Amino acid sequence: MKLCIIIYCNDQIGIISNTTNFIQQKGGNIVYLDQHVDRNLNVFFMRTELVLKDGVSKERFEREFKAQVADRYQMTYELYNTARKPKMAVFVSKFNHCLYDILSRYQAGDWEVEIPFIISNHADLEAVAKQFNIPFYHIPVSKETKAEAESKQLALLKEHNVDFIVLARYMQIVSPNLINKYEDKIINIHHSFLPAFAGARPYHAAFDRGVKIIGATSHYVTEDLDAGPIIEQDTTLVSHIHSVQDFISKGRDLEKIVLSKAISLHLNRKTIVYNNKTIIFS
Amino acid sequence: MKLCIIIYCNDQIGIISNTTNFIQQKGGNIVYLDQHVDRNLNVFFMRTELVLKDGVSKERFEREFKAQVADRYQMTYELYNTARKPKMAVFVSKFNHCLYDILSRYQAGDWEVEIPFIISNHADLEAVAKQFNIPFYHIPVSKETKAEAESKQLALLKEHNVDFIVLARYMQIVSPNLINKYEDKIINIHHSFLPAFAGARPYHAAFDRGVKIIGATSHYVTEDLDAGPIIEQDTTLVSHIHSVQDFISKGRDLEKIVLSKAISLHLNRKTIVYNNKTIIFS
Amino acid sequence: MKLCIIIYCNDQIGIISNTTNFIQQKGGNIVYLDQHVDRNLNVFFMRTELVLKDGVSKERFEREFKAQVADRYQMTYELYNTARKPKMAVFVSKFNHCLYDILSRYQAGDWEVEIPFIISNHADLEAVAKQFNIPFYHIPVSKETKAEAESKQLALLKEHNVDFIVLARYMQIVSPNLINKYEDKIINIHHSFLPAFAGARPYHAAFDRGVKIIGATSHYVTEDLDAGPIIEQDTTLVSHIHSVQDFISKGRDLEKIVLSKAISLHLNRKTIVYNNKTIIFS
Amino acid sequence: MKLCIIIYCNDQIGIISNTTNFIQQKGGNIVYLDQHVDRNLNVFFMRTELVLKDGVSKERFEREFKAQVADRYQMTYELYNTARKPKMAVFVSKFNHCLYDILSRYQAGDWEVEIPFIISNHADLEAVAKQFNIPFYHIPVSKETKAEAESKQLALLKEHNVDFIVLARYMQIVSPNLINKYEDKIINIHHSFLPAFAGARPYHAAFDRGVKIIGATSHYVTEDLDAGPIIEQDTTLVSHIHSVQDFISKGRDLEKIVLSKAISLHLNRKTIVYNNKTIIFS
Repeated sequence: MKLCIIIYCNDQIGIISNTTNFIQQKGGNIVYLDQHVDRNLNVFFMRTELVLKDGVSKERFEREFKAQVADRYQMTYELYNTARKPKMAVFVSKFNHCLYDILSRYQAGDWEVEIPFIISNHADLEAVAKQFNIPFYHIPVSKETKAEAESKQLALLKEHNVDFIVLARYMQIVSPNLINKYEDKIINIHHSFLPAFAGARPYHAAFDRGVKIIGATSHYVTEDLDAGPIIEQDTTLVSHIHSVQDFISKGRDLEKIVLSKAISLHLNRKTIVYNNKTIIFS
Repeated sequence: MKLCIIIYCNDQIGIISNTTNFIQQKGGNIVYLDQHVDRNLNVFFMRTELVLKDGVSKERFEREFKAQVADRYQMTYELYNTARKPKMAVFVSKFNHCLYDILSRYQAGDWEVEIPFIISNHADLEAVAKQFNIPFYHIPVSKETKAEAESKQLALLKEHNVDFIVLARYMQIVSPNLINKYEDKIINIHHSFLPAFAGARPYHAAFDRGVKIIGATSHYVTEDLDAGPIIEQDTTLVSHIHSVQDFISKGRDLEKIVLSKAISLHLNRKTIVYNNKTIIFS
Repeated sequence: MKLCIIIYCNDQIGIISNTTNFIQQKGGNIVYLDQHVDRNLNVFFMRTELVLKDGVSKERFEREFKAQVADRYQMTYELYNTARKPKMAVFVSKFNHCLYDILSRYQAGDWEVEIPFIISNHADLEAVAKQFNIPFYHIPVSKETKAEAESKQLALLKEHNVDFIVLARYMQIVSPNLINKYEDKIINIHHSFLPAFAGARPYHAAFDRGVKIIGATSHYVTEDLDAGPIIEQDTTLVSHIHSVQDFISKGRDLEKIVLSKAISLHLNRKTIVYNNKTIIFS
Repeated sequence: MKLCIIIYCNDQIGIISNTTNFIQQKGGNIVYLDQHVDRNLNVFFMRTELVLKDGVSKERFEREFKAQVADRYQMTYELYNTARKPKMAVFVSKFNHCLYDILSRYQAGDWEVEIPFIISNHADLEAVAKQFNIPFYHIPVSKETKAEAESKQLALLKEHNVDFIVLARYMQIVSPNLINKYEDKIINIHHSFLPAFAGARPYHAAFDRGVKIIGATSHYVTEDLDAGPIIEQDTTLVSHIHSVQDFISKGRDLEKIVLSKAISLHLNRKTIVYNNKTIIFS
């Protein structure tokens, strides 16, 4: 069994040596280790993967890890069986580019993930969901029906034990209620290079500003619109010859790649959120 | 004699053919042509270079151009003898990276330009100016002396017939008075990817936001701080492992290249400002 | 009716003015113009789009264009009705990433194109073709059956009046016979930054060389393997922490975007091939 | 006193924990740690920085490190006092862009390094060396005088205890003799994106190939021309509108930044060479 442990705590002398020592004593073979110290905040972050030798149970290992390492250093930690496939719900509106990018990787087996359903406030992308045999729920949202729509979403998320949510150019603002239930577990793609052009119509705003570079940003959703911890960004050149429509087309190529990279990082437990920023393990 | 003509006007039928026709009839051999139509605003922009055949004077050519082409299409135009070297004043504060980049290109003869002097609000970079035998004027600036300092600057600019000004990490805000005298002729480098992180301490702001990409922007200075027409931008990747100091170091490499590119474009008359944006001819 | 004219010829005085003049006299309203002069080879290239006023037929316009402009300057030209949708055949092997990228844009209506069929030397991607209701032909290829396989391919291409072919990670080398029938009409994606790592297993070769950047290249296929005119390239950073599998994953994101960009350029008739290189109109 | 230890050896259980444990027991406070395991070759690499507490001498620490850690794991290691400034010799020919970039950073105090002299096979850049008060040795090289020129170079290198050599667009091929004396200590900048366009006139070759991206590569010099371990690379876009001279100008901006990055990495002991590739510590 391969475990993944992600921890953070105040930086203290001996963490790395004692943690790696502990793992080895328990019969774990470390196959991955990356660590980072934020020297301003004096916080230590580590991600390790280890193969437990036969006969050692995950529960016992975790119990001892907690007692002998995590509590000792007052670590916040998560410990996973890497074989466990997370469940990812996808929310979409009308644009299909991010959805197709996600589904093609899913189909190719690139990602160890399950997609129990796709939710949309429009019906347009139902045909895409059908192409991939994924249940599709059309849940329209208006000012009056917002709370009810969210209840339906939450019910589905709960019923399917969804681990994290991807907003794949989902154009509705999610409520604090949903955000709090899925803290650091909702990934959004914003079609600008944040913090520039947050909010609506970023390509139009970028065009009006006459920037020479546009970008896309994937981030965890927090209550502050487009202000959550950034996971991944990318940019491309534009010039005076490009129209707003050109900005949009070029931007879509960035959006889908940036979103899929973020999903991949989250899926593979390569991200930690701290201080409204992300540590991205190698 | 090689002339460069840059024009803009409302887009109208026949501009290109009549303009190129005119040039050929006057004995001009077109060696460069680039044009762009902004179809939203219906504005036509063109830049051409032509070699006048012997016997044709620039004054006569310009007179006829104005009468037969520019006035006909109500063009705004500029017409240059390309052999004329512009005069570029450089303003600096304490950082030397942009200044050295400019002076090394100047020394290598990469740029057809004269640098009559360097102005600084600090004395630190006088040694650099001396290395290159360029007159250096230390003009300190404080709240009380701001107007007087500017008078000295203007006097020098006027005395030397300076064509344009480069703020090479010059850390003082220039006044509307100076800006208006040098409209679209003051190039600044801002150490962020505008419009993100305008104003002071952009690297610190970028660091706090947890961006994964930082940038630099060169632009013409207008009365709105960091809001003038953008000429050139570039970006580089950063991650959680980078400190603010790393952001600054990486940023400096961008700043100097982006500023020098903007200077080169302006020098070679490749830029037009329109609608607070730039058209950059090829 | 909107026409697109693409020409090249030796650079001569008066081409632009006479061509634009001609168009206007025939009642054509120029809505796009881009031109380039290769001053080493003294060759002039131009692409223009014009709206013919009612009553003017394409055939008559072309006849007169040929007589009064093209023949006069000895131009090589192509003249299209922009409404005509080209037919694009797609050849694939086992990887699905480029195919899905193409088909999602097709589905979204991003491209004015018809895809009459998909050909593959394997059966794996038949399910993808089915998802999009596109005819799929499994034509296996071995050393013995290569000629016969090609006959089947050519028959299909001919039957459907295919305009151009996309090799979307098609892993068979196409024969000179096919190449010559579709000169500058076969677009390939090579998974390296050509001319580095041409041929087989470029990611492995890149990994062994210890490069810090990998790339993808789309190009027109010629008889020299991976040596045809390059249309589009892009790169991404790699480091010592990346395995060959990481190179491959990162590379796939580049491949599909670079291939789709090349297809888009070709589709929209933005490319000319000259001297084994491409001019890419704006 | 701050020490930097860089090690590599076969990956074995317990290295990290025992090494970090050892350091702490000897009174060392670890302020930096980065490690990497090449799982194909089963090689472990680590770089750590530690502050020795007062009273502990570097010599004693090293002796005990060797006995208790390095020999135990059969490590190849280097142990430095980080305060020791390396000595860097710079070799140039005629181009000044890389030299100015290096000297401006040197002047600004960005680098903890000493530059005892600059050597050139031409006299052109003597004026630049003078600007910065650095001894300049003009050592011409011809086929007949090559060996003698190298003797002079070696004599200077030896006399000044030079630690590493930077070939800053030095256009002579260095002999195996010099290379072997400075194994992994000679940094070159090649003006292409290796392995494409190795050897002479890479910009011309890139132009002829019609690439859409050009690059620059810094690498350690080995006996195989342009084939040594790559340290850093960067790229920029080009198009059909760019002439060879444009490729060269754009390329120079890359060359100087890429070279200076490589120098900075080497200076700060962030590089290890293994298997003709580099591990670049964070």
